[in-house]
Amino acid sequence: MDILDIIRKKRDGEELSAEEIKFLIKGYSEGTIPDYQMAAFLMAVFFRKLSVEETVVLTEAMRDSGEIADLSDVKGFKVDKHSTGGVGDKTTLIAAPVASACGVPVAKMSGRGLGFTGGTVDKLEAIPGFRISLSREDFANQVNTAGIAVIGQSEKIAIADKKIYALRDVTGTVENTGLITSSIMSKKLASGSDGILLDVKWGKGAFMKTEEEAAELAQWMVDIGNKAGKKTMAVITDMNQPLGKAVGNSLEVAEAIEVLKGKGPEDITELSVFLAGMMISMSLNVSSEEGISRAKNAIQRGSALEKFREFVRMQGGNPEVADNPELMGKAMLCRNITADSDGYVSEIDAMKIGIASRHTGAGREKKGDSINLNAGVLLEKKRTDMVKKGDVLCRVYGDSEEKLEAAASICAEAFEIEKEKPCERQLIKDIIGR
Amino acid sequence: MDILDIIRKKRDGEELSAEEIKFLIKGYSEGTIPDYQMAAFLMAVFFRKLSVEETVVLTEAMRDSGEIADLSDVKGFKVDKHSTGGVGDKTTLIAAPVASACGVPVAKMSGRGLGFTGGTVDKLEAIPGFRISLSREDFANQVNTAGIAVIGQSEKIAIADKKIYALRDVTGTVENTGLITSSIMSKKLASGSDGILLDVKWGKGAFMKTEEEAAELAQWMVDIGNKAGKKTMAVITDMNQPLGKAVGNSLEVAEAIEVLKGKGPEDITELSVFLAGMMISMSLNVSSEEGISRAKNAIQRGSALEKFREFVRMQGGNPEVADNPELMGKAMLCRNITADSDGYVSEIDAMKIGIASRHTGAGREKKGDSINLNAGVLLEKKRTDMVKKGDVLCRVYGDSEEKLEAAASICAEAFEIEKEKPCERQLIKDIIGR
Repeated sequence: MDILDIIRKKRDGEELSAEEIKFLIKGYSEGTIPDYQMAAFLMAVFFRKLSVEETVVLTEAMRDSGEIADLSDVKGFKVDKHSTGGVGDKTTLIAAPVASACGVPVAKMSGRGLGFTGGTVDKLEAIPGFRISLSREDFANQVNTAGIAVIGQSEKIAIADKKIYALRDVTGTVENTGLITSSIMSKKLASGSDGILLDVKWGKGAFMKTEEEAAELAQWMVDIGNKAGKKTMAVITDMNQPLGKAVGNSLEVAEAIEVLKGKGPEDITELSVFLAGMMISMSLNVSSEEGISRAKNAIQRGSALEKFREFVRMQGGNPEVADNPELMGKAMLCRNITADSDGYVSEIDAMKIGIASRHTGAGREKKGDSINLNAGVLLEKKRTDMVKKGDVLCRVYGDSEEKLEAAASICAEAFEIEKEKPCERQLIKDIIGR
Repeated sequence: MDILDIIRKKRDGEELSAEEIKFLIKGYSEGTIPDYQMAAFLMAVFFRKLSVEETVVLTEAMRDSGEIADLSDVKGFKVDKHSTGGVGDKTTLIAAPVASACGVPVAKMSGRGLGFTGGTVDKLEAIPGFRISLSREDFANQVNTAGIAVIGQSEKIAIADKKIYALRDVTGTVENTGLITSSIMSKKLASGSDGILLDVKWGKGAFMKTEEEAAELAQWMVDIGNKAGKKTMAVITDMNQPLGKAVGNSLEVAEAIEVLKGKGPEDITELSVFLAGMMISMSLNVSSEEGISRAKNAIQRGSALEKFREFVRMQGGNPEVADNPELMGKAMLCRNITADSDGYVSEIDAMKIGIASRHTGAGREKKGDSINLNAGVLLEKKRTDMVKKGDVLCRVYGDSEEKLEAAASICAEAFEIEKEKPCERQLIKDIIGR
């Protein structure tokens, strides 16, 4: 088999065979196929696309390029919840303890934040003492006894995906449904769960800019997951404005705790309860309405917050953060961004807020950058809120005047204020694979 | 400026600025832009194409990436004749001394053969004693005194083209008019000539498979050459069957000598006289009819052959080859390919004959391979010739039984014999830029 023939075949719009795709991934993983040939192939894929059949084989080949987690020693039907990445998305911190409190075994592997999006692992590390690295045995034992454990994703999972993603990032070949699907799903298929719940985001603060693109990606991922033998569902959600009010690691943990207490912002509460409800539905085989109802109850009766405390304690963290979030520390400096006219907030550009948050020190420009766990952005106003000139729209937190200056000016640009009150927008747009 | 932005811009079908193209070529030449980003860019170009304006800038940037020959010390209007590559194409060996005999200063830089095509430098080296490397001064002096000199093309010319061509070759991005144009023309623009005469070939033994593709490429090259300040013309010629009867280095020199004596095969004589006539027309500013008439005369009165002898002697070769081609040596083995039915030759696939010739040892698979200067293929029959079963169609020459076996079986496949006599085909199809 010859890589040049494979490049030409895809370039000319022909369907690749399973053997050709496996040859490509194996050769690239092992280094016998160089970056420049993979780059040419990826650009040909950008133009010619991948069929669902090609994507299934590609995803499985990428899954098989690394370790595959074996969670068979964890009892029950395990659901892995995955978000395609957003701004202020702390749903895992909420949905995981809620689902666990309802009897769902939560064995979650999470990643770190990059670019304008955050990562669950960084957020959890804002809790004093929290240990993200557990041994395989401790991880399984903790799920079996406490019903919940979260660890950092192994570097050895889907090795081909890491290499391919890094190349796509520098060759203008990120935006392709087949490639995005295989990148996400190869890792999910290797995660050892029985079911996969996908939160596919669209809008200003998401990789998918339109609802249609998000729906297409969701359908592909659901198809690939099901074909590979995992029960898979996807939710399409709006990511035009940040989710909740907090963006930044300790700020988001504090907001998640508020939600678990039943006092959090409406949107993040709605979505977290919905996702937890879906996890319950998939794992315990009840209707989604029943799942959502159980999730709501877990918050109302305090069992979700109690599960959060137990989870934090089991992983070495200080559970008192649930009562006193300031134990996570505080940024040294704060700066307010105010409205320059009367009216209603009609847009809060999630991407800009995400970038501003990175500027405060809360996020990474590139892998391995150190971050400030107490930095970030706190919105005082959300979309459709009425404002008067001089009202605080949001606050930026950090330890450097210079960084806050940059973040503040980006935040100011993120807000749009109009005279008329804008229409409400639906947060959860669709469910695929039900 | 950011290479990723440039890749994305081309990927999305936008026109690149001159600055962006210069940045790309400079960065790639200097190694600050890696192969994988150039590969992605080239595949994007394959799909989105280059405009004429982009191609002008690209060609000039590639020209400027290496040495630019200064032939200002050579008197007269110098015309560089270039073929896009064919099988049995020894026109330079004929047209150059013919044009020189008519007063055209011929200062030619030539290349070596690769793949299924031959190169003038290899052919000249089949002449005992011939030296292809002259100093810059000796080269100019020889053109000024003898009116003709041929040297190997400098490795330092259009350095970016060498690097880009090598990458295109392994990434499936060869077939693109803008890229082919810039590759050829960057070298021609750096060659120091005043005018450029292009022989753009189409058919089975050419890179361009259809006449339309060849005409498009020719038009582009003529436009780019003229825009860059060189008088440029192109001839579109048929390369479905080999040119002449000889394919292989010393075999082709011997045939060129026959043509210079007025006794060569019809097609190669017709094309060589035509090309020499065009060179005369461009250089001496006479009509093309007048140029062709002078070229014919130079052969008839023997001055072209005399010029060939002088040329060979000036460059250290034995001029007696003109009278006794066997001084170039002979292959040890020969094998005949015979007709298996009666009829007329309707096709001789030039690509197959070119590949067969390479198999005899006459050509290179990759750069730097050594070659057998006396190996090759000699056609006994050409298209439209009548044959009887058992007649010799062609002979293969070389020093290895095994190699000749392979070459002979490919040659046998190259011939098609039909009952009806096929129509004649026009060799010279069009002239562009007159």
